[in-house]
Amino acid sequence: MKIIFIGDIVGSLGREMVNEWLPKLKEKYKPQATIVNGENAAGGRGITEKIYKELLQSGVDLVTMGNHTWDQKEILDFIGDSKKLIRPANYPNNTVTPGKGMAYIKINQMELAVINLHGRAYMGDLEDPFRVGEALVEEARKKTSHILIDFHAEATSEKEAMGWYMDGKVSAVVGTHTHVQTNDARILPNGTAYQTDVGMTGYYDGILGMKKEPILQKFLTQMPNRFEVPETGRRKLNGCYIELNDSTGLATRIEPIRIDDDMTWFD
Amino acid sequence: MKIIFIGDIVGSLGREMVNEWLPKLKEKYKPQATIVNGENAAGGRGITEKIYKELLQSGVDLVTMGNHTWDQKEILDFIGDSKKLIRPANYPNNTVTPGKGMAYIKINQMELAVINLHGRAYMGDLEDPFRVGEALVEEARKKTSHILIDFHAEATSEKEAMGWYMDGKVSAVVGTHTHVQTNDARILPNGTAYQTDVGMTGYYDGILGMKKEPILQKFLTQMPNRFEVPETGRRKLNGCYIELNDSTGLATRIEPIRIDDDMTWFD
Amino acid sequence: MKIIFIGDIVGSLGREMVNEWLPKLKEKYKPQATIVNGENAAGGRGITEKIYKELLQSGVDLVTMGNHTWDQKEILDFIGDSKKLIRPANYPNNTVTPGKGMAYIKINQMELAVINLHGRAYMGDLEDPFRVGEALVEEARKKTSHILIDFHAEATSEKEAMGWYMDGKVSAVVGTHTHVQTNDARILPNGTAYQTDVGMTGYYDGILGMKKEPILQKFLTQMPNRFEVPETGRRKLNGCYIELNDSTGLATRIEPIRIDDDMTWFD
Amino acid sequence: MKIIFIGDIVGSLGREMVNEWLPKLKEKYKPQATIVNGENAAGGRGITEKIYKELLQSGVDLVTMGNHTWDQKEILDFIGDSKKLIRPANYPNNTVTPGKGMAYIKINQMELAVINLHGRAYMGDLEDPFRVGEALVEEARKKTSHILIDFHAEATSEKEAMGWYMDGKVSAVVGTHTHVQTNDARILPNGTAYQTDVGMTGYYDGILGMKKEPILQKFLTQMPNRFEVPETGRRKLNGCYIELNDSTGLATRIEPIRIDDDMTWFD
Ligand SMILES: [Fe+2]
Ligand SMILES: [Fe+2]
Ligand SMILES: [Fe+2]
Ligand SMILES: [Fe+2]
Ligand SMILES: [Fe+2]
Ligand SMILES: [Fe+2]
Ligand SMILES: [Fe+2]
Ligand SMILES: [Fe+2]
Repeated sequence: MKIIFIGDIVGSLGREMVNEWLPKLKEKYKPQATIVNGENAAGGRGITEKIYKELLQSGVDLVTMGNHTWDQKEILDFIGDSKKLIRPANYPNNTVTPGKGMAYIKINQMELAVINLHGRAYMGDLEDPFRVGEALVEEARKKTSHILIDFHAEATSEKEAMGWYMDGKVSAVVGTHTHVQTNDARILPNGTAYQTDVGMTGYYDGILGMKKEPILQKFLTQMPNRFEVPETGRRKLNGCYIELNDSTGLATRIEPIRIDDDMTWFD
Repeated sequence: MKIIFIGDIVGSLGREMVNEWLPKLKEKYKPQATIVNGENAAGGRGITEKIYKELLQSGVDLVTMGNHTWDQKEILDFIGDSKKLIRPANYPNNTVTPGKGMAYIKINQMELAVINLHGRAYMGDLEDPFRVGEALVEEARKKTSHILIDFHAEATSEKEAMGWYMDGKVSAVVGTHTHVQTNDARILPNGTAYQTDVGMTGYYDGILGMKKEPILQKFLTQMPNRFEVPETGRRKLNGCYIELNDSTGLATRIEPIRIDDDMTWFD
Repeated sequence: MKIIFIGDIVGSLGREMVNEWLPKLKEKYKPQATIVNGENAAGGRGITEKIYKELLQSGVDLVTMGNHTWDQKEILDFIGDSKKLIRPANYPNNTVTPGKGMAYIKINQMELAVINLHGRAYMGDLEDPFRVGEALVEEARKKTSHILIDFHAEATSEKEAMGWYMDGKVSAVVGTHTHVQTNDARILPNGTAYQTDVGMTGYYDGILGMKKEPILQKFLTQMPNRFEVPETGRRKLNGCYIELNDSTGLATRIEPIRIDDDMTWFD
Repeated sequence: MKIIFIGDIVGSLGREMVNEWLPKLKEKYKPQATIVNGENAAGGRGITEKIYKELLQSGVDLVTMGNHTWDQKEILDFIGDSKKLIRPANYPNNTVTPGKGMAYIKINQMELAVINLHGRAYMGDLEDPFRVGEALVEEARKKTSHILIDFHAEATSEKEAMGWYMDGKVSAVVGTHTHVQTNDARILPNGTAYQTDVGMTGYYDGILGMKKEPILQKFLTQMPNRFEVPETGRRKLNGCYIELNDSTGLATRIEPIRIDDDMTWFD
């Protein structure tokens, strides 16, 4: 099984990049499953139903979320009926929290389970992602050995810990949230593909995909400031490509995808 | 000017990697300046005088530090006399804090100023690294236009902000501390080389260079645990290579250096 | 000199309490200076010009602020001209930050300097409140030995540290921000009156003066929630009363003021 | 039922205060149950078996703990057999964590259940104290309607939230950990006695019961420092007294106990 995972799509520039580049990426990598993190798709803050549907039309199979899941209030209206949209699984009272933390992508006879987890270090008081994640992996393994985790977390220690914890139990653990791609994609000894963070997709000349000036002013003055996501400018796409052994579900390949003006794209 | 910067050296495995690989890196890149972050060189916690001298003998020109600067108490005894060792410049009462936050590397007629700054987001209440950094850059520019900043920080937003803040004012802003190399090395529009984090050098199969089991146990149980740095095992080296225009001091090239069992080394 | 300090006024219920009780408090204590923390006066979030003027008309001599200073954007328009309104003094570029961090209350031939400082532990990256506070105290001491500090901070360690640091240098260090009055009012050995937190003034049956249900839901679900300040309900007033020796400016008395349905008010 | 609860006993000065004052407090209040928080009893860091036994001999019926529970490694050896020592109940894998989070004090025909919970805001990633607490309360209610919770937490919002959450379900929610007594003891509308923090017992002229100089130096320099608990000096005792209705278990009275040189003790 071949998978493309694209990191936090930020605003309209991020969505443009998916629209323009996903066809080329599909041509190159021939993925059977394409997953994107959409927590910043709507102007940097959450996702709307319209944008969610546009992403599916762009060729995306599943959208994961993160700490910005609930930024757009309308998500409460459509997440319940959106089978291709998941949010972190480790909310305290998960059974009544709107939406789900795991979904399956059907690929011919196979299925890929995708789990979304939320970190805790520097991030907030959700339930233990290790415990919740393990329970979901056990549930998923009844149906399939192809399992991918999007671990939306800040601290490198927590993310590496999740990789090692899941090594051999899932196909891949990929990180999101820091908006900076890491250069550590590898297959762990027991067969799980791992990358601390796949990075973000959107404005290239800003800070985390947002205009740099207001954020710099915030650091310099500690005065409140409205962060903005630009709608024009240079753009980048960040993600990774993963290949699994179809019979074991374990990974045989993971490589970062980085597209921007400083990186040559190899056809 | 050609520079090699190697990220957080963790314990004896990290020092071994510097010993073994620095000669090969020098052969390949012909750097005139080699800088390493040594905050974890002594068993993961700080640095000793013996290790500091060994690093110099390995061919290192300057050692930077970070939040672990003071972990080995003996540093208070030798940092004052160690001209090739700097610690973050933004301590509150910097003039009486032992050691310095900036040093110069002499290279024939040229000089490279190296500044060490400490982040604040999720890290502690040091002085504003932007303000302190700017003052040091102004001071350095009286002597040289070749200036490198090691920004030892956690949050990607603070690190990208520092990159943009210094763009055009210094030769390079490279990040350390997260122990995971980022895949975003680039030259910013006004000529400053930038990489959010150059990564770490040491044990390859652990968490941040430490044994994974105790850290995993900490996450799983929230019980205290002694973190250990192994002395045997697979190793990696992380860093970056930077080229500057000799007359302007601005960057013409930056590329990550990643050496481990999953990365082919190109001769 | 006799001083009344009233803690964080939250919304209309808080303002009502000031209106109703300040006359009785003045009758009882005969203060020459009345200071209130007004950072939550406008519906829990900042202060408006109208509310600021109403507070002065209620008999308040000076209003201090805190981490909510800038919540109402209109403050940027009137803080520059509002001589009886101060905000934390330790913003990074304090000279260009709107407003001031210190003001004087004239009382016949005497003056009381009031300084507003912002903590850092768990609170954000302002400048060092100890260093900034000391400089302001030195400046104030040229005019008067009567100096009160409102230290708006979260951590008890940082607040007690400020008390001891200023002991003998100022008349009083009183804390605000936690919205819960502490029972530790005392005069430190060198003559400075100290209370870790004077508490808050407003809705009595909530959490920090806000409706309890949304905050409880936030803790239970970790889902976002709109916090609300009620406009009807039982109310409380929290503050303290301080007496200074007129010639030395040192404190001779400090006692908490707690008015609510569970506390008998002694005439 | 009459209960005395004494807040965080810090070092030998704290233990001295318990020894000297508990007899007088018992004479005054005639409590049937005396509970102390002992997380700092051994030189500020955890508790030893010897100290635990001494506290019982001083007349203490039960010892609760907090974030310092495991500071003394030997606790792992004796907590399993110590029926009058509990630690926070909300560790992630609570069933295998040494010790228990709830215990009962037998008083003639009655029992008082005591539950120890650990906060999360600014404190670490334990399990949800609301969910874990509720389950224990349900368990306890099968045996008794007399239930006291020691909520060891930092943030006033989380503590007030716990008070309201448990109002009417338990006899009392008292807070510990900040080491500063709050002046908000009250009975909530449904009958639960509540005090945000009962304070600490130990050195009076320090910061949180420790010598002030090293902590001040830490704030001023951000350099590491060894915090010390003095063995001589002025002392204080902080706690509260609670009365319950014997048939309902609901509270009829709560009042703070504050004993120090600035507070007159009323016989
Ligand atoms: Fe994001
Ligand atoms: Fe995020
Ligand atoms: Fe490090
Ligand atoms: Fe570090
Ligand atoms: Fe407030
Ligand atoms: Fe505040
Ligand atoms: Fe404590
Ligand atoms: Fe504690």
